Amino acid sequence: MTTGSPHQFVNRMPRYEILSADAMAVLEGGWRRLISEVGVRFDHPEACRLFRAAGQDVDDDGVVRFDPDFVLEQVALAPESFAVRARNPARSLHFGGDHMVFSNVAGPPFVLDGEARREGTHADFERFLMLGHVFDELDSHGGWPCEIDDRPIDSRHLDGARAAWLLSDKPPLGTVFAGEKAEDGMALAAIVFGGRDELERGPVLHGVANVNSPLRYDIAMTDVLLAYTRANQAIVVTPFLLMGAMAPVSVPAALVQQTVEALAGIALAQLVRPGAPVMLGSFLSHTDMQSGSPGFGGPESALGLLCSGQIARRFGLPWRAGGGGLTSSQRADAQAAYEAFNTMLPAFLAGANLVLHATGWLESGLTAGYEKFMIDVEILRVLRAEFTPLLVDEASLAFDAHLEVGHAGHFLGAAHTLERFRECFYRPLLSSTASYERWRRDGSLDTTARAAGLWRAALERYEQPPFDDAIRAEMDEFIERRKRELGD
Amino acid sequence: MTTGSPHQFVNRMPRYEILSADAMAVLEGGWRRLISEVGVRFDHPEACRLFRAAGQDVDDDGVVRFDPDFVLEQVALAPESFAVRARNPARSLHFGGDHMVFSNVAGPPFVLDGEARREGTHADFERFLMLGHVFDELDSHGGWPCEIDDRPIDSRHLDGARAAWLLSDKPPLGTVFAGEKAEDGMALAAIVFGGRDELERGPVLHGVANVNSPLRYDIAMTDVLLAYTRANQAIVVTPFLLMGAMAPVSVPAALVQQTVEALAGIALAQLVRPGAPVMLGSFLSHTDMQSGSPGFGGPESALGLLCSGQIARRFGLPWRAGGGGLTSSQRADAQAAYEAFNTMLPAFLAGANLVLHATGWLESGLTAGYEKFMIDVEILRVLRAEFTPLLVDEASLAFDAHLEVGHAGHFLGAAHTLERFRECFYRPLLSSTASYERWRRDGSLDTTARAAGLWRAALERYEQPPFDDAIRAEMDEFIERRKRELGD
Repeated sequence: MTTGSPHQFVNRMPRYEILSADAMAVLEGGWRRLISEVGVRFDHPEACRLFRAAGQDVDDDGVVRFDPDFVLEQVALAPESFAVRARNPARSLHFGGDHMVFSNVAGPPFVLDGEARREGTHADFERFLMLGHVFDELDSHGGWPCEIDDRPIDSRHLDGARAAWLLSDKPPLGTVFAGEKAEDGMALAAIVFGGRDELERGPVLHGVANVNSPLRYDIAMTDVLLAYTRANQAIVVTPFLLMGAMAPVSVPAALVQQTVEALAGIALAQLVRPGAPVMLGSFLSHTDMQSGSPGFGGPESALGLLCSGQIARRFGLPWRAGGGGLTSSQRADAQAAYEAFNTMLPAFLAGANLVLHATGWLESGLTAGYEKFMIDVEILRVLRAEFTPLLVDEASLAFDAHLEVGHAGHFLGAAHTLERFRECFYRPLLSSTASYERWRRDGSLDTTARAAGLWRAALERYEQPPFDDAIRAEMDEFIERRKRELGD
Repeated sequence: MTTGSPHQFVNRMPRYEILSADAMAVLEGGWRRLISEVGVRFDHPEACRLFRAAGQDVDDDGVVRFDPDFVLEQVALAPESFAVRARNPARSLHFGGDHMVFSNVAGPPFVLDGEARREGTHADFERFLMLGHVFDELDSHGGWPCEIDDRPIDSRHLDGARAAWLLSDKPPLGTVFAGEKAEDGMALAAIVFGGRDELERGPVLHGVANVNSPLRYDIAMTDVLLAYTRANQAIVVTPFLLMGAMAPVSVPAALVQQTVEALAGIALAQLVRPGAPVMLGSFLSHTDMQSGSPGFGGPESALGLLCSGQIARRFGLPWRAGGGGLTSSQRADAQAAYEAFNTMLPAFLAGANLVLHATGWLESGLTAGYEKFMIDVEILRVLRAEFTPLLVDEASLAFDAHLEVGHAGHFLGAAHTLERFRECFYRPLLSSTASYERWRRDGSLDTTARAAGLWRAALERYEQPPFDDAIRAEMDEFIERRKRELGD
C-alpha cells in the first residue's frame, strides 16, 4: 500500500468528539432498531438475492430487515484504510487513518465568475480541472467539476472523462453515472492503467453511491455500487440527508438514519467482495423551513460533521465528510466564506478522510465558482497549517531571544527572528495584511476581486502533465467508437 | 453572586485541548525560568515596593525576578469566577466557568460603512453603542466602540462614558485611560451605582490592562491596574503579543511570555487586594514578515486561542480570548468573514470566558465596521447554536416519523416535522438560502449589502433603556464640572 502523495495532509491533531458515551449508546440502540424493524428497501433484484442468501429477512417489496449483528460482521470485513492509485504514482492517495483527501467541487450545473452565472461548458470543465491540478492543497481535481452543457448529453461523460485523465495526473473522483456510462468510465480507467487486471489489483477510482433516502437504494445507484465493487474500485456510500426532506428534523434521528443507510450499502459491498474498499459517507444538513431550500454551513452542517466522524470511527471505517467549503450563498462573498469555514474546520476537527467539494462550491451545490475556488484554497491552506501540531520543546521557547531583547525591546531584529522570518508564520496567498494606504494604491480590491486575479494567474501557470501517446490513441479510439454507437 | 444575564451563553460543549501533558510541562518549565531569570520590569514605584515587601528580588531598574512558587501562591488567591453587576440587574454578567461574555469592538480610530472609511465621530460612537445594546448576542456594548474625533481630546472620555451609561443598561467594558481619566470613569460608575461603597461591594466595571510587552509594565498601565483593583473592579491583565514584534517568532515562546506577563500582573493585583477579581488575558497573533503589519485570523491566531484557554484553566483563572471576529481585512468581505470565523470558533472551542471585539472589528483593529458588525452577529448566533449540546435521547430519534414516512417518502409533511418546523433548525438573520431567482428578484444583494440593511433596521428598533433622572442630573453636573476643570 502506498503511503499517499507527498502532498497529502496527515491530520495529527486531536479529534473533537462531542457525543458522550451515553449519547453513543442511544444512537447504537437507534440504528439497531431502525435497521431491524423498518429496514432498508433495495429495488435491485441482485441485492435482494444476496441479502436473502445471507439469511436476512427480505419481503416482496425488497425491504430488507437486517440482523444488526450480521451487518456488523459484514462491516468488519471492510478495510480500515486503502490506497487509490493515480496514473502518476507520486499522486496516489491513502484513504483512512489520519490521512485527509481534499477534492474539488463536483457536479454543479452552473458556473460563476465575477457577476456572471451561466451554464457550465466544456471550457469551464477544463478550467476547473486545471485549477484542481495546479494547487497541491487539492488531492483530486474532482472528476466532474461542473456540467458540460455544450456537449451532447448521451456522450458528454466520455468527453469529461477524457479531459479528466489528460489534464491531470491526480486521481479523479469517479463519475457515478449508472449502467453503460459507469461501464464506459471503468473501460477508460482500464485503458489508462493497462487493462482490467490492473483495476483488479486495487482501486484507481473512488466513486460515490448516493442512497435514495430515506431508507431506499434504487436500481441505478445499486448498479454503481455493484459495478465498482466487482471491479475492486472504492465506493463511498453516502446518504445525502437534508433534514426535513429526506430525514426527520432532528440531528440524532438523521445520524441514526445515516448509519442505517450507509451500513446497509457497505454490507452489500462486502457480500459482493469481502474486503471491498468502502467509505462511510455523510452529507447531512437541513432544509430551511422558510425558503424550503437546502441550507449548508450552519450549525446543523457542523454538528453533522462532528458527529459523523465520531460514528465512523466507532465502526472502524474511513469517513467521507459530506463536504468542506459548503455554502448556500449565491455569491463568493462573506456568507460563502463563513459557511465554507464552518464546514471545513469541523471536517478537520472530526478527522475526515475524504472532503469532497472542498473548493469552488456555491449556492448549495448548484454553482461552481471560480473566485470561491480561490477563497477555499486559502481556507484549506490556513487549516492545514492550523492542524499541524505545534512542536513544543526547549528550543521552541527561544529563551536566548529573551536574553537578547530583554524588557520592552523589539524582536524584529533579534537573531532568533532573522534566522526564521521566512518560514516562521503562515504565508497567505489571498488574504491581505496590507496597510490601508497600500491597499488603496493596489486598487482597493476586496477579497473576491483579488481571488479573480489569482485563479486567472494559476491557469497561466498550469502545465499539462505528460500522457503516453499510445494510451491516448487507444482512449480516443474507444471514445470515437462509443460516440458512434451512441449516435453522436 | 448572580448567575449572569438570562441571555448569557453557557458553553457546555467539550474543550478542544491541543497541548499534550509533555508540552504543558515544557511550557511550565519555560515560564518558571523566564519569570525567575529574566523577570518582569515594573516602572511604577508602588509595584516595586509591594513586590520587594513580599520578598521578591527587585533590582534598581525595577526588574522583578520572581520566585515562581510565590507567583502561584498569589494567583491561587484570585477567584475562579466572579460577577460584574449591570445597572439593570438582568444584564449582570458571570465571568468564569463555562460562561462566555461577548463584547462589541473597542478602540478603533476609524469607522467603515459601505465603502466610506473615515474618522470615528460621536454619532458613530453612539450608533455602535446602540447596536451593541440591541442584539442579545452581545453581553456588553464594548464601552468605547470607536474613537470620538469630533470632541476635544482632553474630555471626550467624559462624553463617551456618559453615552455608554445612558444608551445601554449592559455593563460597559471599562475605559482604560490612565490616571485622572480612569478616576473620572470610576467616579461616573460610582454615581450610576449610588456611591463608592457600591463599587466596593463588587465589580461593575471590567477593564483591560495591557502589558508593555515584552516583559514590562509602564506607569500608566500599572496605575490602571492599581486603581481598578483598589476599587474592587475587575481587571483583565492582557499581554498583547504580535510575534516578531513584542514576542519571539514562535508560538510556544509567546505562550510562555504571555504566561509570565499575565501572572506577574495578577500577582500584583492579589498583593493589593487578596481575592481581587482578575482575568488572564491573551491577545496573541503574528507580524506579517512581508508587509510588516500585524496579521489576525490566520493559523497563529487560532492556535494562540486554543493554547491560551488550556493554559488559563491550568491556573484556575477566568480567561479572556484576545478577540473573536478578528481580521486584517480592509473590507467586510470574504477574508473578513473567514478570519473572523477562525478566531470566533476557536474561542468557543477553547472555552473563552470573555471575548472582546466579537463584533465589528476590521483592519487589525484600526476600523470599526457597521456591516462587519452584522456579519459577526450572525457568526455569533451560528456558533451559539452550534455549541449547544445535542439532546440525544429516545424521543430525539423520531422513530415514529420513520414508521410514518417509510422508504423513499418525504418528511416535510410528517407529523414530527409539523410539530417542530418553527424551532427545529437555526434561523439565520443575515445568511440567505434563497433560490437564485428569488435572490435576483430581491435585488441581487451580496452579504455585505444585506448587512447594511440589517444594521440600519436594528437602529430603527433601538429603544433607550430607562435611566433615573436624578442620577442623570448628578452625572451631568459632574461632567460639566470636570469639563470646566479640563478647560473645555
